[in-house]
Amino acid sequence: MPMVVNCAVYENGRRVADLTLDELKDRPRKPGSFVWVGLHEPDEETLSTVQQAFNLHPLAVEDAHRAHQRPKLEQYGDDIFLVLRTAHLGKDNKRELGETHVFAGRGYVVTVRHGASSSYALVRARCEAAPALLKHGEDYVLYSIIDFVIDNYMPLAECLEDAATQVEEQVLSQTAGRETVAQVYRLKKEIMEVRRSVVPVIDMAARLMRPDNPLVDPNIRPYFRDVQDHAIRVVENLDNVRDLLTAAVDAGFAYLSMTQNDVMRRLGAWAAILAVPTAIAGIYGMNFEVMPELRMTFGYPTVVATILVICVVLYRMFRKRGWL
Amino acid sequence: MPMVVNCAVYENGRRVADLTLDELKDRPRKPGSFVWVGLHEPDEETLSTVQQAFNLHPLAVEDAHRAHQRPKLEQYGDDIFLVLRTAHLGKDNKRELGETHVFAGRGYVVTVRHGASSSYALVRARCEAAPALLKHGEDYVLYSIIDFVIDNYMPLAECLEDAATQVEEQVLSQTAGRETVAQVYRLKKEIMEVRRSVVPVIDMAARLMRPDNPLVDPNIRPYFRDVQDHAIRVVENLDNVRDLLTAAVDAGFAYLSMTQNDVMRRLGAWAAILAVPTAIAGIYGMNFEVMPELRMTFGYPTVVATILVICVVLYRMFRKRGWL
Amino acid sequence: MPMVVNCAVYENGRRVADLTLDELKDRPRKPGSFVWVGLHEPDEETLSTVQQAFNLHPLAVEDAHRAHQRPKLEQYGDDIFLVLRTAHLGKDNKRELGETHVFAGRGYVVTVRHGASSSYALVRARCEAAPALLKHGEDYVLYSIIDFVIDNYMPLAECLEDAATQVEEQVLSQTAGRETVAQVYRLKKEIMEVRRSVVPVIDMAARLMRPDNPLVDPNIRPYFRDVQDHAIRVVENLDNVRDLLTAAVDAGFAYLSMTQNDVMRRLGAWAAILAVPTAIAGIYGMNFEVMPELRMTFGYPTVVATILVICVVLYRMFRKRGWL
Amino acid sequence: MPMVVNCAVYENGRRVADLTLDELKDRPRKPGSFVWVGLHEPDEETLSTVQQAFNLHPLAVEDAHRAHQRPKLEQYGDDIFLVLRTAHLGKDNKRELGETHVFAGRGYVVTVRHGASSSYALVRARCEAAPALLKHGEDYVLYSIIDFVIDNYMPLAECLEDAATQVEEQVLSQTAGRETVAQVYRLKKEIMEVRRSVVPVIDMAARLMRPDNPLVDPNIRPYFRDVQDHAIRVVENLDNVRDLLTAAVDAGFAYLSMTQNDVMRRLGAWAAILAVPTAIAGIYGMNFEVMPELRMTFGYPTVVATILVICVVLYRMFRKRGWL
Amino acid sequence: MPMVVNCAVYENGRRVADLTLDELKDRPRKPGSFVWVGLHEPDEETLSTVQQAFNLHPLAVEDAHRAHQRPKLEQYGDDIFLVLRTAHLGKDNKRELGETHVFAGRGYVVTVRHGASSSYALVRARCEAAPALLKHGEDYVLYSIIDFVIDNYMPLAECLEDAATQVEEQVLSQTAGRETVAQVYRLKKEIMEVRRSVVPVIDMAARLMRPDNPLVDPNIRPYFRDVQDHAIRVVENLDNVRDLLTAAVDAGFAYLSMTQNDVMRRLGAWAAILAVPTAIAGIYGMNFEVMPELRMTFGYPTVVATILVICVVLYRMFRKRGWL
Repeated sequence: MPMVVNCAVYENGRRVADLTLDELKDRPRKPGSFVWVGLHEPDEETLSTVQQAFNLHPLAVEDAHRAHQRPKLEQYGDDIFLVLRTAHLGKDNKRELGETHVFAGRGYVVTVRHGASSSYALVRARCEAAPALLKHGEDYVLYSIIDFVIDNYMPLAECLEDAATQVEEQVLSQTAGRETVAQVYRLKKEIMEVRRSVVPVIDMAARLMRPDNPLVDPNIRPYFRDVQDHAIRVVENLDNVRDLLTAAVDAGFAYLSMTQNDVMRRLGAWAAILAVPTAIAGIYGMNFEVMPELRMTFGYPTVVATILVICVVLYRMFRKRGWL
Repeated sequence: MPMVVNCAVYENGRRVADLTLDELKDRPRKPGSFVWVGLHEPDEETLSTVQQAFNLHPLAVEDAHRAHQRPKLEQYGDDIFLVLRTAHLGKDNKRELGETHVFAGRGYVVTVRHGASSSYALVRARCEAAPALLKHGEDYVLYSIIDFVIDNYMPLAECLEDAATQVEEQVLSQTAGRETVAQVYRLKKEIMEVRRSVVPVIDMAARLMRPDNPLVDPNIRPYFRDVQDHAIRVVENLDNVRDLLTAAVDAGFAYLSMTQNDVMRRLGAWAAILAVPTAIAGIYGMNFEVMPELRMTFGYPTVVATILVICVVLYRMFRKRGWL
Repeated sequence: MPMVVNCAVYENGRRVADLTLDELKDRPRKPGSFVWVGLHEPDEETLSTVQQAFNLHPLAVEDAHRAHQRPKLEQYGDDIFLVLRTAHLGKDNKRELGETHVFAGRGYVVTVRHGASSSYALVRARCEAAPALLKHGEDYVLYSIIDFVIDNYMPLAECLEDAATQVEEQVLSQTAGRETVAQVYRLKKEIMEVRRSVVPVIDMAARLMRPDNPLVDPNIRPYFRDVQDHAIRVVENLDNVRDLLTAAVDAGFAYLSMTQNDVMRRLGAWAAILAVPTAIAGIYGMNFEVMPELRMTFGYPTVVATILVICVVLYRMFRKRGWL
Repeated sequence: MPMVVNCAVYENGRRVADLTLDELKDRPRKPGSFVWVGLHEPDEETLSTVQQAFNLHPLAVEDAHRAHQRPKLEQYGDDIFLVLRTAHLGKDNKRELGETHVFAGRGYVVTVRHGASSSYALVRARCEAAPALLKHGEDYVLYSIIDFVIDNYMPLAECLEDAATQVEEQVLSQTAGRETVAQVYRLKKEIMEVRRSVVPVIDMAARLMRPDNPLVDPNIRPYFRDVQDHAIRVVENLDNVRDLLTAAVDAGFAYLSMTQNDVMRRLGAWAAILAVPTAIAGIYGMNFEVMPELRMTFGYPTVVATILVICVVLYRMFRKRGWL
Repeated sequence: MPMVVNCAVYENGRRVADLTLDELKDRPRKPGSFVWVGLHEPDEETLSTVQQAFNLHPLAVEDAHRAHQRPKLEQYGDDIFLVLRTAHLGKDNKRELGETHVFAGRGYVVTVRHGASSSYALVRARCEAAPALLKHGEDYVLYSIIDFVIDNYMPLAECLEDAATQVEEQVLSQTAGRETVAQVYRLKKEIMEVRRSVVPVIDMAARLMRPDNPLVDPNIRPYFRDVQDHAIRVVENLDNVRDLLTAAVDAGFAYLSMTQNDVMRRLGAWAAILAVPTAIAGIYGMNFEVMPELRMTFGYPTVVATILVICVVLYRMFRKRGWL
């Protein structure tokens, strides 16, 4: 994949020209026109060319070099620097994680993708298909990118919800075992990670919606509220999954504890019942010369009967007390 | 059920005309007059007709197409878009869940029902029966709808409270078992769900009560405070039920643990007592040729007596220590 | 008890006339004069007479019909509607619960008691005994009522504190049992209930103290701060009791667990010791024809001595490891 | 100890006269001069004399009569009423608790000590030794008193820290026992109590530092920030101790559970091994006439060898699985 | 190491002179010039010289004498006093803790190092290497110091993360043992300590970024936001580690509990199976004269077969129920 994925000039919502990075510096600067640059893991030189073209703040560019930033929005005067963590379901429902940095300001939007962050070609295509909206300018592009990132989290959250429902079923059908414990742990960990990626977007959207934000047009503000609403929904879903897991784990632990108690109580009760014939038989197994009972004709059946009676009585008693 | 349940013009609190959707566009627009449209799972075309008639915001209409939104209030200039989750007790005390979307603005209120959301015919009838209040206009209709939705949650909350009281009784009478665990889990889950539906209404009402809300008349504000108060009451009831459940589960677990300890201790104590005759009898059951005790006349009763004494002493000792 | 307990006109802090409800409408309205009406579970007609006399807001009156409101303060213009939950210790230290609704505005205070809410005759008497304070007017009466309600909670909170101390003693002396579990549950439940009744009063007092409150004179504000301080003290006492209970329950559970471990370990150790003679004696109890040891003269004492030695060694070993 | 411990007039930071309470009313009132009165558990008459001399608010005086107030700062116009809970380490590292009420306003500071609140003679001596600071006036005295009270909490917090470290050592060296449980409980309780006494001081200092506070000079504000900083440090130490205790208790519980599991598993494993010879020997101890093995010359050693082999195999197996 | 590590005058971002402490008082005071003093555990005299040279606030100097302050930023007019807790990984990945106090104001920055706080020579070198930035003045130096302190925490947080991953692996591979418990405890303790050192820096940076801060230039504000961002990242990493630990401990406890249940259930089941031959054999080991079975030719094999059948049936039953 090339480092410069795309670099085009838009006027009144229509793509009017494709530039190379070197032409960026001398791009036409008309009102209502802006450049949208898409980069993929750019090297230092590329980034530096872009920085000079749009006069990006050095601290923002420093951050853009390094991946593994925390999601954040930083405002340098009229210019915005955005770090987004991206995730989408890849093959076998595995999460693929990436990171996107966005620089935006009067006349330009630059996206920088790291890792498995999905391509914004789709976003660009959708925007170009709706020139009426795209002519709003940079703020609409910004909205489209954040919206795309958040929408990719929705299937992930649903996937986590399905996994939690499986745990729930295992618990309620009392078939939860060692694997369930590991699954709960992995789910908790994933929820934490996704939450950390999405929660900051709620605040970002709020800051972009503020009336004093120079870059965002009042007509576009409802769109950022929409993004915020989606982010909140993802987070609420996650919190819901987390709370369900907690409740399911509590229930599972209660079941485990009850089952263990049951088994031990039963085994203990049977051991106690069986200890009776052993003890009595042991006594009549002693080798004393003078043991009158041993001489009695009905000694043996009497003892066996006594043993049986005691065992049956114990069995009933334990049964009644719910020990068996 | 038809998609358009109702579509009427009101003037000074009285119904003056019934319209079809197509007549909506050319409805008379006088001050003090408004249209109240009731839709039920409308198709795209119907919604689009309504959208054009009242000039609804595209983002709001997009949300209205999809069910399973989170409850929210969004303001587009003077126009309001409301998502409410509804629930009422159906047959066999089963919750029936639905969703209602409300569009409201100068001159119109549109309700869109999804799922088992109960009909607003009752609300309409009540409003029409009180023209003095209905002549306040759209804000009063808005209040009536939200109030109706929240009031339907009250019996649900009471039903959850009854279920929690049952759990409490089972715990305190120490008859809680496997079924109780499942019931607690289901209750916790329901409480979470209802909470998520009702909590956002508190904030909605607060925003509708704000002095700068263009749609709500100062005289109607106390009514929204009333709605807010009801919503808070539902939530407080739920929180109360949740806290009681937590306390009951703690108590139940303590009982379970104590009972288990008791049973195991008793079984263990009996096994220990019975091990004594077994061991002693085993010794006198050995086949050594030279075992002087076996020849003694009173050997047998002495040993049996010794065994009995040891067992009684152990029994008393265990009893005293509370092990039996 | 009559529905209208009292209905008197006050001027400059002194009771100047007693009225019937029907005379209320034509009461003299002078500055510095106000009517104080005390009702007890009034019927619809009585409430309606009062409503007309003082022009009470219909939503407030609707609430006053129904008992079991949550504590709240609602302001309708210059008029205030207050719901208070009351509680006092009755016979046998049982809580008696009630509810009081207060309407207050320029020239009137109306109290409506429900359930076991204690009579405000005492408050009235105290107020009448201090004309210098009572001449402040309606706000002072309002203060006196709320103060009385909160002061009644103090002995209740102390009673809960005593009960928690009992639990603490049982736990620390390791005599906590099944009854303690039930007591902890009941205490937790009562604390939740009392908390829910008192916490809203803190906010009520804060709202009555606000400089823009039209009904409360600046000189009376410190009195409402005093009420607030008392309410906070009750709540802090409750929170303290709750935290102590939690700590005591933790300690109790640790003790329970330790005791259970001790007992099971001891019983298990004794069983293990006793299994040795049983096993060895079992072997010499076998009926093989060729068992040379059985023929030896010192076979028997040797085996018994061996058994004793093994048992003593095991006993010492277990003792050393702290298992016995 | 006399009720009036001290009563002196200060001018420009120097003590210029000692008064009796009766002379207070006619004290000279010059700017830059103030009276500092120290009382110890005063009777009603004494307090009333002071109240009249400085025109104290009746609600504040009412509070000062009663001990066991919660810590608070109340402002009556320019006058301040302060309740502080005091504590210091007495003999044998026992906490001695007290309470100090402070009235302060233009021209006066009155301290009222209850219980084991330590004497402010030291504070007075320190202030008098620094006339350059004392000439700031009442606000500096106020600072000195609160600072003294908070500084006395420092050794207390360190003492709790030491106790927690002891618990930590017992837990990590796995020697924690019953006494540790009781110690943890007592520590938790003390932490709660000290926290409740110190936390309100943070807010008090914040309120005294506010620019609109009429009594506190801008130059003295950093001193109150210093007091606030000390109070925060005490609270942070306490929270730290509490968190450490929680972590130590968790670790201790895990150890306890592991040890118990170990012991029970071992005892169980030994019992299972010993059950084998018992069962086999039992079989050859049966008295059947036709048991060919009993007649075999090598029957006995074969059986004993078999038993030994089984036991050794079991022992190795259990060992391998970590059960022994 | 000398007490005065460095003491230089900077003009327009370049070091123009080195001074002794005694020359400080008569240093040239030109706009755009400032002095940067680096002290290491200074004695009282040195600090006092510096205090007089820059007119430092006595309360700040009092704090600087004592180590073990909590991290804080205090503003005295235009002057700032900063307490930072420092930590870096030393040999063997051991944390080395220190403390740095910074005094800053118009024309000076003074750093005071205590304990193992790493030298700021590196910071000074970096600053001197970037005169374009250093000419911003005192605020840039302040930024460089705080940034250096926070950056040193990053490897520490990663080290804790590695340790937590080890715990996680031990838990998931079910090899967690006593050492894991101790490790979790130590990790929790370290996280608490590092958190307490770093969290206050977030607030410090926020306060330094405020528009009304007299010392910080608007161009330098983004740098403090960068510091804040780094501090937040450290804290988020720590919180993440803590949450992972909690989840891992929960999973570990569940495994421990399951394993223990398994073992006890198996041992119990085997004991129950073995109790059957013991009991039956005991009966036929009795010495009654009349026991017809003993005379039967196939008595012995019948009994042995019966025992075997019972044992096999029990074994299968237990197997089926998952007890074995």
